[in-house]
Amino acid sequence: MSRVLILAIVLVGGVSSAAHAQSWQTPSDAQRCPSKWGAGDQRGSANHMKPETVLRAARLIKTGQVIELGRVLSASMPIQATRRFEIHTKRTQMNDASNRRGSNEELVVAEIGQVGTQFDGFSHQTIGNSMYNCHKVEEVASRNGFSKLGLENVGALMTRGVLIDVPALKGVQMLPDSYEITVADLQQALKKQGVTLQPADAILVHTGWGRLWGTDNSRYMGPNPGLGVAAAEWLARQDPILVGSDNAPVNVTPNPDPKVSNPVHQIMLVINGIHLLENLKLDELAASGAHEFALVVQPLKIEGGTGSTVAPIAVR
Amino acid sequence: MSRVLILAIVLVGGVSSAAHAQSWQTPSDAQRCPSKWGAGDQRGSANHMKPETVLRAARLIKTGQVIELGRVLSASMPIQATRRFEIHTKRTQMNDASNRRGSNEELVVAEIGQVGTQFDGFSHQTIGNSMYNCHKVEEVASRNGFSKLGLENVGALMTRGVLIDVPALKGVQMLPDSYEITVADLQQALKKQGVTLQPADAILVHTGWGRLWGTDNSRYMGPNPGLGVAAAEWLARQDPILVGSDNAPVNVTPNPDPKVSNPVHQIMLVINGIHLLENLKLDELAASGAHEFALVVQPLKIEGGTGSTVAPIAVR
Amino acid sequence: MSRVLILAIVLVGGVSSAAHAQSWQTPSDAQRCPSKWGAGDQRGSANHMKPETVLRAARLIKTGQVIELGRVLSASMPIQATRRFEIHTKRTQMNDASNRRGSNEELVVAEIGQVGTQFDGFSHQTIGNSMYNCHKVEEVASRNGFSKLGLENVGALMTRGVLIDVPALKGVQMLPDSYEITVADLQQALKKQGVTLQPADAILVHTGWGRLWGTDNSRYMGPNPGLGVAAAEWLARQDPILVGSDNAPVNVTPNPDPKVSNPVHQIMLVINGIHLLENLKLDELAASGAHEFALVVQPLKIEGGTGSTVAPIAVR
Amino acid sequence: MSRVLILAIVLVGGVSSAAHAQSWQTPSDAQRCPSKWGAGDQRGSANHMKPETVLRAARLIKTGQVIELGRVLSASMPIQATRRFEIHTKRTQMNDASNRRGSNEELVVAEIGQVGTQFDGFSHQTIGNSMYNCHKVEEVASRNGFSKLGLENVGALMTRGVLIDVPALKGVQMLPDSYEITVADLQQALKKQGVTLQPADAILVHTGWGRLWGTDNSRYMGPNPGLGVAAAEWLARQDPILVGSDNAPVNVTPNPDPKVSNPVHQIMLVINGIHLLENLKLDELAASGAHEFALVVQPLKIEGGTGSTVAPIAVR
Repeated sequence: MSRVLILAIVLVGGVSSAAHAQSWQTPSDAQRCPSKWGAGDQRGSANHMKPETVLRAARLIKTGQVIELGRVLSASMPIQATRRFEIHTKRTQMNDASNRRGSNEELVVAEIGQVGTQFDGFSHQTIGNSMYNCHKVEEVASRNGFSKLGLENVGALMTRGVLIDVPALKGVQMLPDSYEITVADLQQALKKQGVTLQPADAILVHTGWGRLWGTDNSRYMGPNPGLGVAAAEWLARQDPILVGSDNAPVNVTPNPDPKVSNPVHQIMLVINGIHLLENLKLDELAASGAHEFALVVQPLKIEGGTGSTVAPIAVR
Repeated sequence: MSRVLILAIVLVGGVSSAAHAQSWQTPSDAQRCPSKWGAGDQRGSANHMKPETVLRAARLIKTGQVIELGRVLSASMPIQATRRFEIHTKRTQMNDASNRRGSNEELVVAEIGQVGTQFDGFSHQTIGNSMYNCHKVEEVASRNGFSKLGLENVGALMTRGVLIDVPALKGVQMLPDSYEITVADLQQALKKQGVTLQPADAILVHTGWGRLWGTDNSRYMGPNPGLGVAAAEWLARQDPILVGSDNAPVNVTPNPDPKVSNPVHQIMLVINGIHLLENLKLDELAASGAHEFALVVQPLKIEGGTGSTVAPIAVR
Repeated sequence: MSRVLILAIVLVGGVSSAAHAQSWQTPSDAQRCPSKWGAGDQRGSANHMKPETVLRAARLIKTGQVIELGRVLSASMPIQATRRFEIHTKRTQMNDASNRRGSNEELVVAEIGQVGTQFDGFSHQTIGNSMYNCHKVEEVASRNGFSKLGLENVGALMTRGVLIDVPALKGVQMLPDSYEITVADLQQALKKQGVTLQPADAILVHTGWGRLWGTDNSRYMGPNPGLGVAAAEWLARQDPILVGSDNAPVNVTPNPDPKVSNPVHQIMLVINGIHLLENLKLDELAASGAHEFALVVQPLKIEGGTGSTVAPIAVR
Repeated sequence: MSRVLILAIVLVGGVSSAAHAQSWQTPSDAQRCPSKWGAGDQRGSANHMKPETVLRAARLIKTGQVIELGRVLSASMPIQATRRFEIHTKRTQMNDASNRRGSNEELVVAEIGQVGTQFDGFSHQTIGNSMYNCHKVEEVASRNGFSKLGLENVGALMTRGVLIDVPALKGVQMLPDSYEITVADLQQALKKQGVTLQPADAILVHTGWGRLWGTDNSRYMGPNPGLGVAAAEWLARQDPILVGSDNAPVNVTPNPDPKVSNPVHQIMLVINGIHLLENLKLDELAASGAHEFALVVQPLKIEGGTGSTVAPIAVR
């Protein structure tokens, strides 16, 4: 595909999605609550975790290859301005006993739920003061966590993972800055890959943006390609257990309609109760050509937490 | 089995292992280095992670049942005196955009590698100034992590897990305080369960002590049943990928020979390069009667870290 | 004075003050705002800092003796359950240069404004959502400090200090647990000392309770002698620059009327805009027999902070 | 004074001091220990704190004017790359009692001893592994502070302060980048000011560099004017209680002899046991024309700490 043609596609996509995005408005509480998982539910899409979900995933393990999807956690990784990740080594404390046992440990000071490859919980995002299933911030927030929608409700997830490789569809290694992924992009990529989405899938959307992680952190955290409103709403209708991507916000940045801030976060976490995976390392998975696989992710059980840094794997 | 008989067994075991323990001495660097995984190796038993290891585990998944082995992370959980786990909620930061998107996150201040259910890396423990494969503390320690043996070297582990249920063997729910698990205990339990250990197994030793987690934290962190030197050395010879238990130190506490401090940590981490899993939640797994299963654990890739809190699962 | 007599006094005081306390109600915003320092004022009693205030203090310096009133900050000091003070040494970072310069520093993790000997700012306390001068919490609080009433508004204070030595009046070394200091106690102690309060004074109320600091921390943080409502209101009318004491809450604990929680904090910080000094070390000052002196305290200029740990001095 | 002339002076000063600096070598332990304050001493120049020192200072208080020399502590202030200052507001915790008392506090995460206007203690710096009075790092350092030379040994300081105003001597508002202050500069400035140094003085060297604080933080933390080796050694011979300046390292940066890193820190803290004050706010003091005054500084009593952020004052 020629570079000129790619740009043409981008342009068309941009126009089309901007038209969609401009009309996007957050639903009222009455329109979205109770969620389909029931009044008071705190687990949303994680309710998909059932024995048949696990078995479906296990059957996809054929070669025993494990592909790591998590980034190394280090002080120098790309990170939002309000967050950081620091480890302070507590040097050897020697035991007096004859076996001269020394122990090292480290203090970690970090927004540990929201750094590195991360799993977003439902207390992370709001529409006004209202979260998933219309739990209200002022009723459940404390100084030390949320009494509802805390991350301890999620549990480990093992399900069929599907990679939607948009750069492969476009014949590029990385989508352009601020490229908005459209419904058509997703549908065409799935068709090209010969894969059909199913409820409870973990849908990983490859943008190629992860190539910048550790090589150009400043650009990585700037405007990025990602899902637009229409694509996110279409994905949500496929009833996945989670949606992830190899960029920081999942959403295209800036959002085509600048009056709307990261609507994908609200569409997934607040409106539909679908978890998100951010800053995934997808290069190796994409290069492997695997489009379906067992996806396993183990969010930390942070009581009252809004998210968790994670180290998920694809197994096939 | 009568209570009197149990006590008799305990007594015999104690005497026998004390005899062993009293003679235990740490090997010299020359005796233990290079490790069997090669000079300079940093990954130890995690080198067992190969496609056949994963396939062997996947074949054990038959019902799709997932059993969580990780504890909820909260400020009130049992914890060593030098450590803590705190989350400080950073309340809603509202976006100015029309979609009224609010974000919550939290600062976590914790020895995150060494709290809750935790995976021990090799930089955690020493014999004098010497760690696994004779990497020296003063050569690899910095203020902000270890340049060798950091936890980012481990990677996710998926392997056959084996539960050795010692309380079931003894006919009790929980082993007595400071009960030293012996080689005979392990062998008899395996025989009773009809399971044979294989290289690359994740060996989980059930003590029942986890019943005290959250119900009597003070007792949980005090003297506890666990592995003695002889049992640990025997387990190490079985060539596992990791050894775990439902207590804090894996080792019996206090060690029968009080001149030796937690030798199991040195035997596994320093001498044999075998990872440890501590504070496992094993009650549900034991109750399920599952003695072999797929064990999946995803340590956080903390660059230069000594360990990681984890949320492992057994799948069968 | 016999011990029996002392107990009798205590009893009478208790009854009398309880009567007062039971009727105490927080004033409405309209009753207390704007403060006497003007609408919008953020500095309250610190507005007393004027050249004549300083000169009055300097004239009291006659011997050059400096008496330290601040406690050593350590992890083992008495501390409220929601707070802590930890220092994590960052060991030597060696410079490569020929002069082999090594640097040590430490990370401190602490509610640094509210630990040890501490100076309370106005954003520390509220009546409902309303603070000093009726600044509203929701209008000025952010994740990272208060846009109004932050501690950076205070500045260093140098003024005449007056010690009111209640144990000396009573002929004891330490007031009994939960002893409520009355107006009569204060007036009689001042009379006995031959000292008259003046506007802008730093009034330090000695209880003797500080004897327990470091010797019985648990008792120190439990029920303690301190000011009651009537005594606090009388002190506020004397127009001091600050009121301090050698206990944690300044207020008697528990408050005689258990329906009212630490009213002294509201009387001083919220209603009258008078700063507080807590956990003072007053033993040496009391032993010196000095009843007036120059008091110098330098709160840290924590932008948006609620308080500051301090190391004040009395100079005479 | 014309600008051309100033530059000529700079040039001469630079050459002259470079010649000095190149020959500077750290003394051996034997050459510098025990210190003049006695073997084992931990307090160094702070031993100057005696009644006559305080009285000498108090006599300088004539107008009652207090000039603040401390910077506001905020997350956006200039700071070394290895340090930070963060406050995390812990929002209102409401008390259930009838008086609706709410409390706010904040967690501070900071190298609190080494941020903002700061007072350097002796455990902060080394020559190799040896600190002031030849206390050895490995003998006194722990994970949580230093058992010797901790900041709790210092105590509050009240002494005569002397401002040496080098920009005023040169007729500039701010010394040029990397300008090395020479002995002649100090002597001429003192002569021009009509002030003679005395033992126990707090010597504050004005460079004008503080004008960049908050206006050009990046330049502030870059190459800066400051003391050279010769000037520092001359100052040390005047036997001060402390030396301070309105820049971050006190030393000129980079050091003229690039093979030597911040020798002023070693000359003062390690070799001579003289405390340092960094990042002072000296503009108002310099503008006031006050060359001698009472200097009061209250370092936090951080047990085992290497330094303390402070809010010192000049009183006259």
